[in-house]
Amino acid sequence: MKPSGVITITTDFGHQGPFAAVMHGVILDRFADAKVIDLAHDIPAQWPPEAGFWVSRSYRYFPRGTVHLAIVDPGVGTERDILIVEHDDHYFMAPDNGLLARLLDTADAAAVFKLDPGVGTERNILIIEHDGHVFLAPDNGLLGLLLGRADDASVMHLDLSKLPSLGIVDTSATFHGRDIFAPVAAELAAGNITAADVGSPTMDWIPSWLDEPEVSDGKVKGAIVTVDAFGNLISNIDAGHVQGFTNPVASIGGHEFTMNETYGRVQPGDYLALINSFGVVEIARAEGDAAEGLGLERGAPITVRDSG
Amino acid sequence: MKPSGVITITTDFGHQGPFAAVMHGVILDRFADAKVIDLAHDIPAQWPPEAGFWVSRSYRYFPRGTVHLAIVDPGVGTERDILIVEHDDHYFMAPDNGLLARLLDTADAAAVFKLDPGVGTERNILIIEHDGHVFLAPDNGLLGLLLGRADDASVMHLDLSKLPSLGIVDTSATFHGRDIFAPVAAELAAGNITAADVGSPTMDWIPSWLDEPEVSDGKVKGAIVTVDAFGNLISNIDAGHVQGFTNPVASIGGHEFTMNETYGRVQPGDYLALINSFGVVEIARAEGDAAEGLGLERGAPITVRDSG
Amino acid sequence: MKPSGVITITTDFGHQGPFAAVMHGVILDRFADAKVIDLAHDIPAQWPPEAGFWVSRSYRYFPRGTVHLAIVDPGVGTERDILIVEHDDHYFMAPDNGLLARLLDTADAAAVFKLDPGVGTERNILIIEHDGHVFLAPDNGLLGLLLGRADDASVMHLDLSKLPSLGIVDTSATFHGRDIFAPVAAELAAGNITAADVGSPTMDWIPSWLDEPEVSDGKVKGAIVTVDAFGNLISNIDAGHVQGFTNPVASIGGHEFTMNETYGRVQPGDYLALINSFGVVEIARAEGDAAEGLGLERGAPITVRDSG
Repeated sequence: MKPSGVITITTDFGHQGPFAAVMHGVILDRFADAKVIDLAHDIPAQWPPEAGFWVSRSYRYFPRGTVHLAIVDPGVGTERDILIVEHDDHYFMAPDNGLLARLLDTADAAAVFKLDPGVGTERNILIIEHDGHVFLAPDNGLLGLLLGRADDASVMHLDLSKLPSLGIVDTSATFHGRDIFAPVAAELAAGNITAADVGSPTMDWIPSWLDEPEVSDGKVKGAIVTVDAFGNLISNIDAGHVQGFTNPVASIGGHEFTMNETYGRVQPGDYLALINSFGVVEIARAEGDAAEGLGLERGAPITVRDSG
Repeated sequence: MKPSGVITITTDFGHQGPFAAVMHGVILDRFADAKVIDLAHDIPAQWPPEAGFWVSRSYRYFPRGTVHLAIVDPGVGTERDILIVEHDDHYFMAPDNGLLARLLDTADAAAVFKLDPGVGTERNILIIEHDGHVFLAPDNGLLGLLLGRADDASVMHLDLSKLPSLGIVDTSATFHGRDIFAPVAAELAAGNITAADVGSPTMDWIPSWLDEPEVSDGKVKGAIVTVDAFGNLISNIDAGHVQGFTNPVASIGGHEFTMNETYGRVQPGDYLALINSFGVVEIARAEGDAAEGLGLERGAPITVRDSG
Repeated sequence: MKPSGVITITTDFGHQGPFAAVMHGVILDRFADAKVIDLAHDIPAQWPPEAGFWVSRSYRYFPRGTVHLAIVDPGVGTERDILIVEHDDHYFMAPDNGLLARLLDTADAAAVFKLDPGVGTERNILIIEHDGHVFLAPDNGLLGLLLGRADDASVMHLDLSKLPSLGIVDTSATFHGRDIFAPVAAELAAGNITAADVGSPTMDWIPSWLDEPEVSDGKVKGAIVTVDAFGNLISNIDAGHVQGFTNPVASIGGHEFTMNETYGRVQPGDYLALINSFGVVEIARAEGDAAEGLGLERGAPITVRDSG
């Protein structure tokens, strides 16, 4: 793989303080010609799947040979329990922090598990080569959405014993983005090392907190992965899942919306279901906020069926 | 025109999600040496004039040969009515979404028109060459402020039939920033094409939603174009409009403020009218929020007269 | 000093409008190969020490030869009084705008002074060379934290009479970031000039608004410098101040927290005191907001003592 010199960064740091900027600095210090792009820094801290979703839906718009960093790691430093909830034939995995409370309240038959708190700690970092791109992220399910549909991906765990030979020493306990991810990305993007130089092949990684959509006859069950700044509810159901449907209808939160092939004419305040510009099913509200209007959030189940 | 390799982006995307970042990616994929600067991403979605204002007031601080993208397009996908309101010898144009409601409530004799919803759709894109810079924006009035004072500008409509020859295919219905604007800007900034290669000269474009200030004897009538993060009310009245005035007084929302040539000594909480650093009349409040304090917003009429 | 071509920018501009972007433009217009990094733009307008703190804690992550701009200047244009409060053997300096009110209310024996409003005006700009980096900031105490611990720093005042020879003319009264700082930084980063070419050596500058922590036997008194997006209270007490302590305990707002050498296992809602990734004492709350929970803000006094 020929490096493009481009690095993207996706985090939950927000836009306050120098946290993302010092990662740029560390990269430029090692690779003066790097081009560092902030993909997104507003990922909710407790919701790594959103980072994985945006990375997996966005990487193809960057040059081949780009290195993508994604760092959302609710497990860092707290070793708290991770919940896995089974509901309606889906699994939902999240820290035991109330995020799943609403789902648990409404689930008819939810089975709740707790993950061994030892898994998902910050020292397990995945390096993935796929489709001419390199991805680095904590091994906490963040890149599960990508791996779920990347059969040809080369998956490695970062071998931490190799870091000192790259001059990566005295890493802090809590800011691995700056102290591990950034320098490794710089060396990869500069072409000084390859992923194989610092990674050990693995077949064992934490799966996505969100299952791939479940497809049965004329029906696809998925979930809302993210809500954008306009309140659009964006799901993990792909255009490909529904492309054979004659008359697709989306069900969410007790409402049904006929899918529009194009926006068409809608009135302000109307809801609409459509395939958005990232190729997934989205619930929008014309000149309004669908999430607020429907009282729905990340994690909400959504089904699209063919009403024939 | 010699390209500088610099591209600026102005949108209403906000800072959440990867929407601006994928435009950077598309540009770097076509032109590896591009320098992409985010000019502003917090333009209110229903208020294109603010984008045009900032672009027209900021472009001169960038190298000649820069390509400026501005994408705020409330018409995308909804085909809703556009209102034109005539009030107090001014025209105000906006989507029929309540933005003009306050104005309509208070207008003594407002004439309201509706634009043919066919105009201003997303497929009409302007390319403008002016003062050694290139500007791309939807033909929806966004760049009207620029065109209103750029007699020498070369104005073209982007010829969409030329896009496939640039490898621009499979464009989404809703994200033209990524699928049309970004790749065209990359090719222009790289010097691979000129504006004339992809544009057809035109004399026909949607005018600005805000008129140029109206100048009569010793009096200038304008409007508030934007409110900055500190609550300063920024108008479209230029320093040049009032430079001959002996004793300029600004009237807005029933209040009068003497213009200060310099900041001078003001007390916390005091309002002041001044020429700001972008060369236009601004109403500020020392250590306070003028917009909140006066209960005024974008679109508010403002008059500066010479009290002699 | 060999310039790296990198420039960082720290301001109180926020992320709305083109204010930071036009500084990028001005820099690229003079130095096409510049790499401009936004370090932070969310510094509270009335609290320059936070800018100085982040710059002094972040610069080492950038290549040597980087130029760091920091522009937070509550004195611009208003000439209002600057208060100096003496309390508990500390000095606190801030504009007379209520920021210190809570402190004044609770101080047993606070001595309040007023600075001559002539000091700290925007025309006094410091250029500092230290540790292979260059720093530019208003001479208003912003870089005091850096100077307090940089004995070898070369400190100069920018000689404004040299600006016209660099083509820096017609500077606005209020946007020196764009009109003075950015072009000077560009010339420095391009290697066209050195700091000595435009600066006059000085031993006289406005000190930090926050004293260096006061170290006595087994006790360090400091203050909260900043609160990050997660509500963590970040102090100016350095790891070095407490490294000899056997059993360090932090006292703040009437609470006491045992310092944890590592995060360890804490429960959601628990508070913890730790050395953070920037090497200073921080009060955090697991999956919570420490500032909100404790009702504390910037400026709050904090003490760490060795409980043996």
